[in-house]
Amino acid sequence: MLARTPPTLDALLRGLPASWTLAHEGGETWSPFDVMGHLIHGEQVNWIPRARIILTHGDARVFDSFDRLAQFTASAGRTLPDLLDDFARLRKANLRELGSLDLTDADLDRPGRHPELGVVTLRQLLATWVAHDLDHIMQISRVLARQYSDEVGPWRAYLRIISGT
Amino acid sequence: MLARTPPTLDALLRGLPASWTLAHEGGETWSPFDVMGHLIHGEQVNWIPRARIILTHGDARVFDSFDRLAQFTASAGRTLPDLLDDFARLRKANLRELGSLDLTDADLDRPGRHPELGVVTLRQLLATWVAHDLDHIMQISRVLARQYSDEVGPWRAYLRIISGT
Repeated sequence: MLARTPPTLDALLRGLPASWTLAHEGGETWSPFDVMGHLIHGEQVNWIPRARIILTHGDARVFDSFDRLAQFTASAGRTLPDLLDDFARLRKANLRELGSLDLTDADLDRPGRHPELGVVTLRQLLATWVAHDLDHIMQISRVLARQYSDEVGPWRAYLRIISGT
Repeated sequence: MLARTPPTLDALLRGLPASWTLAHEGGETWSPFDVMGHLIHGEQVNWIPRARIILTHGDARVFDSFDRLAQFTASAGRTLPDLLDDFARLRKANLRELGSLDLTDADLDRPGRHPELGVVTLRQLLATWVAHDLDHIMQISRVLARQYSDEVGPWRAYLRIISGT
């Protein structure tokens, strides 16, 4: 599943005009461009670094906090194709590193300590990595569809992605 | 956008084991396999056929009803890679046909008659085709993520795709 996210987002987003990739759901919500920056930051500081903390320190060392807004400075001035390339490259390297850890069932049950959630296991961290990817594929699909909230006219009633019901 | 859906779903689904592709959200909800059959049925009887009805008859002829459950018989015995291939092939042919219609702004404003929603325009039909694709990409992402509802442990609270909030 983790290897699928870069090509999935590439197929969905690469080459789209900025009117789609920079669009969001209003207020402080994120655009597809913002989400890509967030996914990149996760590859850099979240998933594998936290796995390494668990393997080295167990729950004796709390994870570093994750900055959910890091992409607003880190992505400044970059292009979406550049972010897609970066995400694919980082994910590939992280999956190679994950494979090289040769995790056993006992490793997967090792505990770590989340700054807000408390004790979690390495197994839960890896499952969350997968679900988090899917959460953001869902978010990007929703953000894109909602740009057509008015354009679909009466069909709005049938489109849960727009009506939210 | 319409050309992006087949490669997006291909990247997300092709080669996944049945434990993912046949999983659903309980009750009568749909699996990724069911959704692919529904998308195929739409290519066959919904979008382009309705566009043709609008162009030929305007709102004098009501659209045929769309069978939301057709895939449960049509997909029986088929494989997911086969459905992905079929969807890509049908979508490509339909986009070629859409291009060949050389639609003008006046065409896009032509009215049609939906059996439940009443008067709609060709422009709204085409926007709905796009949003409907994205709705089902969102649905498939959600169905996949929810298979990890328990596996993510305490992170469930942070994953809107699982918590539903």
